[in-house]
Amino acid sequence: MPAVEVLIPRSVEEEFPGRVASVDPQIRVRLVDQDGSVEGAEAPRVLMRGNIRNEAMQRLLEEYPTIEWVHVSSAGVEHLLPLLEGFGGIVTNSAGLYAEPIAEWVIAMMLMHAKRLRVLVERFERREWQGVASEEIGGKTLGIIGTGGIGTAIARRARGLGMHVVGMRASGKPSEHVERMYTPNGLHEMLGLSDYVVIATPLTEQTAGLIGEPELRAMQPSAVLLNIARGRIVQTEALVRALEEGWIAAAYLDVTDPEPLPPEHPLWGLPNVFITPHTSGHSPLSSRRVLDFFISNLRRWLQGEPLRNVVNLERGY
Amino acid sequence: MPAVEVLIPRSVEEEFPGRVASVDPQIRVRLVDQDGSVEGAEAPRVLMRGNIRNEAMQRLLEEYPTIEWVHVSSAGVEHLLPLLEGFGGIVTNSAGLYAEPIAEWVIAMMLMHAKRLRVLVERFERREWQGVASEEIGGKTLGIIGTGGIGTAIARRARGLGMHVVGMRASGKPSEHVERMYTPNGLHEMLGLSDYVVIATPLTEQTAGLIGEPELRAMQPSAVLLNIARGRIVQTEALVRALEEGWIAAAYLDVTDPEPLPPEHPLWGLPNVFITPHTSGHSPLSSRRVLDFFISNLRRWLQGEPLRNVVNLERGY
Repeated sequence: MPAVEVLIPRSVEEEFPGRVASVDPQIRVRLVDQDGSVEGAEAPRVLMRGNIRNEAMQRLLEEYPTIEWVHVSSAGVEHLLPLLEGFGGIVTNSAGLYAEPIAEWVIAMMLMHAKRLRVLVERFERREWQGVASEEIGGKTLGIIGTGGIGTAIARRARGLGMHVVGMRASGKPSEHVERMYTPNGLHEMLGLSDYVVIATPLTEQTAGLIGEPELRAMQPSAVLLNIARGRIVQTEALVRALEEGWIAAAYLDVTDPEPLPPEHPLWGLPNVFITPHTSGHSPLSSRRVLDFFISNLRRWLQGEPLRNVVNLERGY
Repeated sequence: MPAVEVLIPRSVEEEFPGRVASVDPQIRVRLVDQDGSVEGAEAPRVLMRGNIRNEAMQRLLEEYPTIEWVHVSSAGVEHLLPLLEGFGGIVTNSAGLYAEPIAEWVIAMMLMHAKRLRVLVERFERREWQGVASEEIGGKTLGIIGTGGIGTAIARRARGLGMHVVGMRASGKPSEHVERMYTPNGLHEMLGLSDYVVIATPLTEQTAGLIGEPELRAMQPSAVLLNIARGRIVQTEALVRALEEGWIAAAYLDVTDPEPLPPEHPLWGLPNVFITPHTSGHSPLSSRRVLDFFISNLRRWLQGEPLRNVVNLERGY
């Protein structure tokens, strides 16, 4: 049987190349540098795309037309679609593999808001023994836009904390842990009854700019918006106005438009905003989850079975 | 039927006196001021103790020996035991009625630690787009000392977030949501295998100073101690040394010894401590929960049924 060359980024953890190689004696692992240079590859058939620059990836695909399958280590692939336009092979993504830390981020931010942790930190730092009025998240309603792997992981935890959970998905299909599911037609209704709204949908042509002035005005003035998906799903100017004028109470954002958010951007200065730098999915366990997933897909691929997490390049996720 | 005079604090919410009065036509509500003065009481039989000073309460009990039943609006009563020494009636407490907000506080603090929210807040305030290594709480082990109402509320939520939960209680009896229950003999074993340890036991002669040097040294250097019970359950000097010398990683305290913690106390200055001012039980829903509980107990009392949450004054809870 001929060797199967698999390209994986050099930046992965030490034991990863060995684990990939041990999947099958046919496998030859070739390490790719950030700039796309590879040593010793002749006709690689698989590329695991991790910490490789966009231009480098494009060059790799041109240089090695033998590549049949690209696995992307991020959950969203919308930023790679232009690079993949001419690519005729299979693309798989890592959707769902960051769900656990992202869902914890969402719970952390809702509690940060309800318990007013930023005020408590300030008082602690001044050594003040003085409480602040706080709320419970139990009994509150969380509306989830997009109930895929991440949305479901959020829903499960929110239910465990005694919240009511409603959701919106394109198909409107019911989902475990979601008490009431809306279609996009019901978005405004869902926004109106939610105390917290979290965006957990892929960025596509349909969802770009989905949350604008009418949607923000449909929310309650006491409601909180959280975004862990992509910054461009929210119309940033409308969000700034909503926060300045009190259409909503606060926003907790792990993603922004643009990214990184420049220091002079008005979002930074608002008292009712908190921003983290697109790191909600970071976890010491993430790279291992991606590798485990890639390896199980590699086994399927070698055996001619259908791959999991195949991206529909037309649809964009 | 003779009138039944019920003393309730004047500081309760507006509709409370009316709701108490509506329980039965016999009831006459008398409002007590913070200083213990009451208008129009002749032979009151019930005292709901809320925001009334200790001396005032003692005076009330002496002035009105007709009082048969005192309901205390706090969960713990150890601070009232000296005042109740000569009292021959029934004392009930509000144990369990603060469980929901306290359990949310515990989850909030574990996430604050795991997600390194204080570092993220600092970076946000400097408008820095830079992440920080963070962890997941899912998969970690939470050890709960005391699995009554509050401990159980914590356990349920922690399980919903994918944590392993072990517990310690005097009886060692199994409890739902707790995967493994220890008796006090197994405390050190439980401490050694927990990533987070939360103290949720009443302050009694048995639990005062329960967590000292041997217990803190039994914990893992990466472990986190949380206390929402009473400050005196932890030996403060040993805790300061544990935090300074790295026997444990951090402490999140809603209660301290003494309280309020004076500004010059060394605990404030440690980089691995966070303190809130005994407010983890605060919630807009708390006073209503206490009133609802008191009213249901009042119905039982009028019908001669056994009361709930009767305090064993010998045992202290």
